[in-house]
Amino acid sequence: MQKLFEYNWQVRKDWFDWCETVDPEELMKKRTGGLGYILPTLYHIVAVEYGWICGGLQGQEINIPSFDQVACLHDVKAFSERCHEEIAQFVYDWNDALEDKMMIDITDDGERAAHAYGEVMRHVIAHEIHHVGQLSIWSREIGKKPVNANLIGRGLFHI
Amino acid sequence: MQKLFEYNWQVRKDWFDWCETVDPEELMKKRTGGLGYILPTLYHIVAVEYGWICGGLQGQEINIPSFDQVACLHDVKAFSERCHEEIAQFVYDWNDALEDKMMIDITDDGERAAHAYGEVMRHVIAHEIHHVGQLSIWSREIGKKPVNANLIGRGLFHI
Repeated sequence: MQKLFEYNWQVRKDWFDWCETVDPEELMKKRTGGLGYILPTLYHIVAVEYGWICGGLQGQEINIPSFDQVACLHDVKAFSERCHEEIAQFVYDWNDALEDKMMIDITDDGERAAHAYGEVMRHVIAHEIHHVGQLSIWSREIGKKPVNANLIGRGLFHI
Repeated sequence: MQKLFEYNWQVRKDWFDWCETVDPEELMKKRTGGLGYILPTLYHIVAVEYGWICGGLQGQEINIPSFDQVACLHDVKAFSERCHEEIAQFVYDWNDALEDKMMIDITDDGERAAHAYGEVMRHVIAHEIHHVGQLSIWSREIGKKPVNANLIGRGLFHI
């Protein structure tokens, strides 16, 4: 489980670095599909990971700022770093005994939904990779090479 | 490990169903980013999964047709089903003892590269999710709602 989170965190850092090389206007230009904008997509990735893991699985009171409150690259990066500090230990402490533990989620419609912890963790992993795939298309639209998405070759597995 | 493969296989089936609802010309229309076309992207997802798992991890002789040999939706679906039959058991039999087993890959440059089996499996998982994120953008470009990418709510985890 941890390796896929580490992959996502590496790739996310690479996308933040990529953002530094792009005209800030491009990061907030309306695009087709997904969240429709590059920087709000990165904010959304962070907020979803933080919401599910810190609020959902760790059961802590959380305060997720609106995008307007973190509306520049610097602040989204800081938001990502703050959230990372709050969830990283939980991810590194993950073990198989947690797989079937259940959490109750209150949906936007006010309904109660039960999820296995293992399901939530994988949802968060897939969620980030999916949105990063969208960023890669928008990157080409603005004439930039996207971040390398390969998991192999990132040094995540020490041989 | 298996749950993320099951997620990918469900989502892939949903994309094949989605393709049935789209003008075939849209599936082969040049687009920006990624592989540049919808149907070749689905072919590529299958070929990469099959190549790494059947050829790489199972060490079997494999024959991957070129895209031109499977250039319609029906044939790409048949290719996916054939490959699935050859790799599904390996995925379902996966266990932690295989994590650090090593395979030697000969790269396109003729160099030898060593990969842990666990690294290859996660590479294949992330590879498909990434490309599916790209499909979701192209779907909106042609005015269609993309396949739901949520892992939660797919019934993958039986409560």
